Amino acid sequence: MFRRLKLLKLGKNLHSRCSSTYTGNNSKFNQNLLFYGPASAVFIVGGLYEGKKRLFREAEAATAHIPTPPSFEPPDRNDLPTFKLSDVEKHGKNAERIWVTYKNGVYDVTEFVTSHPGGDKILMAAGGSVEPFWAIYAQHKTGEVMEILETLRIGNIDKKELEASKTKVANADDPFSLDPPRHPALLVNSQKPFNAETPPSLILDNFLTPNDLFFVRNHMPVPQTDIKKHRLQVSGLGINKPVELNVDDLKLKYEPVDVISVVQCAGNRRNDMNEYKKVNGLMWTGTAISCAKWTGVRLRDLLITAGVNPNDRKIKHVHFEGADTDPTGTRYGASIPFHKAMDPDTIVAYHMNDQDIPQDHGYPLRVIVPGNVGARQVKWVTSIKTSDIESPSHWQMKDYRAFSPSVTQADKIDYNSVPAIQEYPVQSAIMTPATGTKVSKDDGTIDVAGYAWSGGGRGIIRVELSADNGETWYSAELQQDSEQDLERMWAWTLWKAEIPIPKGIEPGQKVEIVCKATDRAYNTQPETPSGLWNIRGLVNTSWHRVKVDITE
Amino acid sequence: MFRRLKLLKLGKNLHSRCSSTYTGNNSKFNQNLLFYGPASAVFIVGGLYEGKKRLFREAEAATAHIPTPPSFEPPDRNDLPTFKLSDVEKHGKNAERIWVTYKNGVYDVTEFVTSHPGGDKILMAAGGSVEPFWAIYAQHKTGEVMEILETLRIGNIDKKELEASKTKVANADDPFSLDPPRHPALLVNSQKPFNAETPPSLILDNFLTPNDLFFVRNHMPVPQTDIKKHRLQVSGLGINKPVELNVDDLKLKYEPVDVISVVQCAGNRRNDMNEYKKVNGLMWTGTAISCAKWTGVRLRDLLITAGVNPNDRKIKHVHFEGADTDPTGTRYGASIPFHKAMDPDTIVAYHMNDQDIPQDHGYPLRVIVPGNVGARQVKWVTSIKTSDIESPSHWQMKDYRAFSPSVTQADKIDYNSVPAIQEYPVQSAIMTPATGTKVSKDDGTIDVAGYAWSGGGRGIIRVELSADNGETWYSAELQQDSEQDLERMWAWTLWKAEIPIPKGIEPGQKVEIVCKATDRAYNTQPETPSGLWNIRGLVNTSWHRVKVDITE
Repeated sequence: MFRRLKLLKLGKNLHSRCSSTYTGNNSKFNQNLLFYGPASAVFIVGGLYEGKKRLFREAEAATAHIPTPPSFEPPDRNDLPTFKLSDVEKHGKNAERIWVTYKNGVYDVTEFVTSHPGGDKILMAAGGSVEPFWAIYAQHKTGEVMEILETLRIGNIDKKELEASKTKVANADDPFSLDPPRHPALLVNSQKPFNAETPPSLILDNFLTPNDLFFVRNHMPVPQTDIKKHRLQVSGLGINKPVELNVDDLKLKYEPVDVISVVQCAGNRRNDMNEYKKVNGLMWTGTAISCAKWTGVRLRDLLITAGVNPNDRKIKHVHFEGADTDPTGTRYGASIPFHKAMDPDTIVAYHMNDQDIPQDHGYPLRVIVPGNVGARQVKWVTSIKTSDIESPSHWQMKDYRAFSPSVTQADKIDYNSVPAIQEYPVQSAIMTPATGTKVSKDDGTIDVAGYAWSGGGRGIIRVELSADNGETWYSAELQQDSEQDLERMWAWTLWKAEIPIPKGIEPGQKVEIVCKATDRAYNTQPETPSGLWNIRGLVNTSWHRVKVDITE
Repeated sequence: MFRRLKLLKLGKNLHSRCSSTYTGNNSKFNQNLLFYGPASAVFIVGGLYEGKKRLFREAEAATAHIPTPPSFEPPDRNDLPTFKLSDVEKHGKNAERIWVTYKNGVYDVTEFVTSHPGGDKILMAAGGSVEPFWAIYAQHKTGEVMEILETLRIGNIDKKELEASKTKVANADDPFSLDPPRHPALLVNSQKPFNAETPPSLILDNFLTPNDLFFVRNHMPVPQTDIKKHRLQVSGLGINKPVELNVDDLKLKYEPVDVISVVQCAGNRRNDMNEYKKVNGLMWTGTAISCAKWTGVRLRDLLITAGVNPNDRKIKHVHFEGADTDPTGTRYGASIPFHKAMDPDTIVAYHMNDQDIPQDHGYPLRVIVPGNVGARQVKWVTSIKTSDIESPSHWQMKDYRAFSPSVTQADKIDYNSVPAIQEYPVQSAIMTPATGTKVSKDDGTIDVAGYAWSGGGRGIIRVELSADNGETWYSAELQQDSEQDLERMWAWTLWKAEIPIPKGIEPGQKVEIVCKATDRAYNTQPETPSGLWNIRGLVNTSWHRVKVDITE
């Protein structure tokens, strides 16, 4: 089933790939995989260990020459009626007729859905604009696609209403009123503060998660920062005189560094743990994790320039504060151990996937601490402070600590009984198929794909799947960043496998598929949340389980 | 039950502690714990996280002033008969009368066994000499103990036979004929080459495993090295001229460094994995692990002095060769990543627990790579070589790699499918009670104790026990080295707990106790070997399980 995918040649440009997707191949798996970005066109076959098999960077290089597509404008169609945005909204994914907009054009895509090469994904835009999706899937931005779309045109959106819809108005009573617009595909766990996951059906499409689809974990309203006025203060133990820097200082005075690194929330997969036994917190499913390329300056360079002696034994921790505040004015804060702050890959970033970091992700500056939990990678960072103690922040001292399973009452927690989470344990999850997917027995096999990652730079050495709760295992093919080795792998591993439907399973029955990964230190995931369970539902790394329905 | 132990004061000298053990308290748990070395007299109560609670070094300091006991000589007893050593051997632990020797004295300890404060442990010496045990339990070497012993005297060993028994004769047909004498308490898995575990009943007695009881993993005959003639060559990539050093060079020309560090065989607990599903290899149970203080010189200092540039990007690995050879003359070899070789705690050691390293453990020089698997900590080291590739040694390329559970045939292994084991995953095991121990229901609780450790310097943050397969958990009290923090903890964690016998368990039934540890990166152990199983039976870190019998 993977054969067709493997035939895709590196260097084949997006246009011709896009055309080939219009041939109407409707296999569920091809639909998914054809939408993998060009970076993932070739998977590792078999083991991952030899560097030459890790092809992400090569693939990236091979497609880097593709020009940015021009901006397309739908033609004026005064012969067609004008609709309100609220009219379009009524034609969502459950409506009889499916409408979408592109700029001021309105389109009825009902008949097109079945021939859309991205399959059901088009329904994510139903009742709204396709633009946020096309921003991510650039292959749509061709004359050919516009031509197809215009054949489905049924009307116009009033241009004034369109403009007005883009303007946000501050509301003094709502501290969240100036939060930025978000991509409609994000799965929202909480609006205020905004917390949302990447859709599992889209997360494997790109090795580097597009900025708009990167999961969002906000503790407070998004601060209204200004790249021209933003200041970063570096101070603390071993620094005689605090240093104040603006964003241009960082860009001009320090060596720029790129790091491809995952950010994962400590609460990722909390929902699975909650199903085992009730826990407290945002019910993240499996996609509070994303991977991006971050560009910035080494934290160690900032500290050394400020006067820190790298061998100073009094400095134990480095604290960060963000510009985000709670109603009492308390800023978000966290700290990391000094040795990690001095790691050459720990950076203060100003770019995310070659763009300014978006407002939701820390504009204009955030700390990237590769291999550590998201909570320490402080966004909108304004202050860096060396210290002999940990950050006294609530989020360092009283949150993001996973207590013993024996602690079952939230009011009886001894916060000093465990250390603040820093490095993450080994994790993996199945992104496709989703639970409830129907798989025909005649297929004989099930196509499975997902991600894996471990903290501390411990690369993933293998991912295995079982359809019989661990009796029989199948190894997945892995996709990794070819420029990172297993000793310092901050990027994630995407993987896929084709596993046989177990013998004796008949139509009408379910098959539970489990996955688990092994990292460079040969740590692997526990079977169930039993030994992991903690009242805050953190670091759930138990085997991920998905149940599919076998049909005729 | 731990109360009596906690009353022991730091600084109380060995003599008075030893006297107090003769009061005849026969509680099974006190017997174990009273034999904990002075270093472990105080356990951490509750969480471990605050450094001040880790008391090993303080306790060590408090007892460091105790003078080395004098050598005792049994008096001449011409009034008693003379026995042969073979006569004594007949009075082993299953004989009607239990005999032991001390130097040239023969003693009948049958009546004394029940009042021995170390309990059954005295039976380990039955039919032989108590000297190897007294070498470890120095509290015996007092006038008071000798006085008690002499009351049990029944005869003499002929002094000439005694001398002759200590002389080894080389046998040209047996390459193992010059292997050193070993402690009789070691549990032998293989005689030639010699491979043996520390007895679980003794392993918790000392935070630093006594040299004589340190587990032994030999691949070949023990080489007959000479500390005066031994040479260490440093050469390879980035070194213009090879450097040759003798042991005095190391001691005199380089800064000495102490590191308390665990060595664990990759095959530790293989036997448990074999019970789950057959694997190949030496059937280590749970004590192919020990902890010692190593003294030597930094490998990084040796390399830099030899001309290596610490930032040389071409050097990827550092190879080691030992003086031990197989019949074809092939030496044992292994390598570690360059970054690990440059870690200031990676050393070439010449002392083990303040003594010359014993023959079995690498005399006169061995590499200590804290946090890595034993196989890379090359003994009898003669050569250190920088390189851009891994060691081509059999033990690097074709052994000490844990394959996928999907690889079930030894002849179908793709050795490149996984990397050589370096850092170890998180591990823990129960040392007491042993499976089959009888526990009275009236006790209400079960006293459990064991060890925990993780690779990469990831300190153990907690150890938990369950008597109902993970439904309910109890946290153990931990003992750690107070000079190592959770970020770089090379030493192990000893632990103990008192857990209730589950409700509804009646005399005649069994209770299965499980333990699992969590490390600094929040990795924890998997429930079963299901996801860990590999044909070579390596890195079994599944929950350790012990079944005790509940009696009236």
